[in-house]
Amino acid sequence: MSTTTSETLPQSQRPPHKESKGGLEGIVAATTALSKVEGTAGQLTYCGYTIHDLVRKTLFEEIMHLLWFGHLPNQKELSGFKADLIAERSIPPMVMQVLRDLPASTEPMDALRTAVSAWGALSIKGHPSITQALAVTARFPLFLAAFHRLRRGQEPLESRPELDHAANYLYLLTGQVPKDEHVIGLNAYLVLLADHGMNASTFTARVVASTESDIVSALVAAIGALKGPLHGGAPSKVLDMLDAIGTVDNAERWLRDALARGERLMGFGHRVYKTEDPRAEELREMARVADPQGFVLARRVEELALALLHEQKPERRLYTNVEFYSAVLLASVGLVGDLFTPTFAISRVIGWAAHVLEQVDHNRLIRPEADYTGPTDLHFMPLDER
Amino acid sequence: MSTTTSETLPQSQRPPHKESKGGLEGIVAATTALSKVEGTAGQLTYCGYTIHDLVRKTLFEEIMHLLWFGHLPNQKELSGFKADLIAERSIPPMVMQVLRDLPASTEPMDALRTAVSAWGALSIKGHPSITQALAVTARFPLFLAAFHRLRRGQEPLESRPELDHAANYLYLLTGQVPKDEHVIGLNAYLVLLADHGMNASTFTARVVASTESDIVSALVAAIGALKGPLHGGAPSKVLDMLDAIGTVDNAERWLRDALARGERLMGFGHRVYKTEDPRAEELREMARVADPQGFVLARRVEELALALLHEQKPERRLYTNVEFYSAVLLASVGLVGDLFTPTFAISRVIGWAAHVLEQVDHNRLIRPEADYTGPTDLHFMPLDER
Repeated sequence: MSTTTSETLPQSQRPPHKESKGGLEGIVAATTALSKVEGTAGQLTYCGYTIHDLVRKTLFEEIMHLLWFGHLPNQKELSGFKADLIAERSIPPMVMQVLRDLPASTEPMDALRTAVSAWGALSIKGHPSITQALAVTARFPLFLAAFHRLRRGQEPLESRPELDHAANYLYLLTGQVPKDEHVIGLNAYLVLLADHGMNASTFTARVVASTESDIVSALVAAIGALKGPLHGGAPSKVLDMLDAIGTVDNAERWLRDALARGERLMGFGHRVYKTEDPRAEELREMARVADPQGFVLARRVEELALALLHEQKPERRLYTNVEFYSAVLLASVGLVGDLFTPTFAISRVIGWAAHVLEQVDHNRLIRPEADYTGPTDLHFMPLDER
Repeated sequence: MSTTTSETLPQSQRPPHKESKGGLEGIVAATTALSKVEGTAGQLTYCGYTIHDLVRKTLFEEIMHLLWFGHLPNQKELSGFKADLIAERSIPPMVMQVLRDLPASTEPMDALRTAVSAWGALSIKGHPSITQALAVTARFPLFLAAFHRLRRGQEPLESRPELDHAANYLYLLTGQVPKDEHVIGLNAYLVLLADHGMNASTFTARVVASTESDIVSALVAAIGALKGPLHGGAPSKVLDMLDAIGTVDNAERWLRDALARGERLMGFGHRVYKTEDPRAEELREMARVADPQGFVLARRVEELALALLHEQKPERRLYTNVEFYSAVLLASVGLVGDLFTPTFAISRVIGWAAHVLEQVDHNRLIRPEADYTGPTDLHFMPLDER
């Protein structure tokens, strides 16, 4: 038995110790055949297809099929797949009771996290599977819409089988069959946000899955990560900013004042993209169509903000990120601000699930190291001598 | 605006791309002043104190104080700290209803995950704090014991303020003031398992906290990671093995047969330790005292298993890990097998919380990269052409 520590070895014999800057930048944590993010070129593809092709021409259900089965479905596959999803559109009474018992002031992300956890406790056993992914994905909009209606004193509604995923979510929120342009806008949003490399929530889901835990444990963990404002928790702040600015004429003064106070403008900059986020480009066009009037203010604020940020720090070029037009688009289809992040989860859950399935397929426990920087060799004194 | 991708640069100009073997082995993901794990020397310290000093001489509450405040409490600090914990020993009616509504067949880890999530939805707003860490830590044993009694058709009990954390948990499970040797054994277990570097659940908690999400989202995520059998989910299988072996005389034949069938013996080997896990050494001594009779079989099985594993693969030395005597000790203090992993969570939650507080103190979003290995540049065909 050897008790030699690496510290006692000469430098040249010590094992290589890889360092990161604390955020694992540039460290490859997994291989994936799902999405490819090219930060410098500003490109995003899902399983080889650019999002610019997918966004206007596919239903969100087709993207689920693509990420889980590796190919876009044909008509017959899509019909069967939709039927499987529709068959899962139910909330067990126990989970509905949880949603009823949460106070109206509960953050929707906390309600979603708790409902998904409770549903998993009732329903999930064994290794992650596409069947499980489908069953939980089908229910994300149901949990959220039920909570949203209950917190407003309204009864939850039954899903409508003739409505697809995006349309049914809007129907469950409002009780009205949604307008076509709202369905098209929300479907495009769901398609665009479905997967994005090794972002923090997807990475969280993979770490949990790497312990051979269950798929719901991984998804509940990912919901908690998405909630953080440095990840998915901030888009409603873009709307707050636009509301505070109010008019085109007020925009420049408001933005200059905010920058002078040292405030951060919401919706600009991303760790990976060094050019415009390709999703922002598409969301801008969707927002323009969905609400031409509201778009005028948003576009003016965007242009001014980019110009002022460039004026302030010419050496650091910032671009519009996915949050800015996510907020504009989601507001234009009728969602209130605190549903923006959970609606992001309704999209991203299909990426999380795909990564969980990929992780368990060739698994290795994800277990990095820490550098200890605290005190060493302290002399212990029992309580009565302290 | 540059659209040059790193792929178009000559090899020598491409940015360095760090690779891991898929499990982030040897990658430093954080600096910490909490625990130090020395895998080759077989040493574990908390904030500079070796666990061999702490295990028999401190109360679990002292370790909480050490990990959260950075120093062991004196008598006065400990009294105040205990009073703060005792004041948090309550389950809100909404969370109790969730525990009542879960079927008896629910996995205790799923019940814990859901109860903690529901409690957080009701109780937690704002940035992680020691106050929040204390409030949630105080309730872990309450949630578990309430669920355990409810699934057996018994009513949950009220905590006893004169009992410390370990003793109160045993009381809440059984309704009996526990024997001293059981309290000592469980307290030692809780002390030994409280923190352990950048293990998968602690890392999960830090990734979630790095998005600036809330502490309960981080802890719920960590519970999901601990549940996996490659992390904390397997110790009850050690007990299953000992039960199947039954007697000392049967041990060698049983173990040889299991190895011949290619089965994995439970409780041996660890990614980090290349010698005996220092926690295993301490747990062995606690188990010897707590249940001298049961210990005889466990010890014989351990010795035989190590010898047979060595015989089978002389080049790969395996050692007893923390799971083996965790199972023996937890059984000896009266816990049933499916409470072993959630009891691990009752201990480890204080390390998770300490790491969350440390992460947010000098935060940087943890966001690694992925290597894309799937198809590229696929030609999109709309649904009616597929």
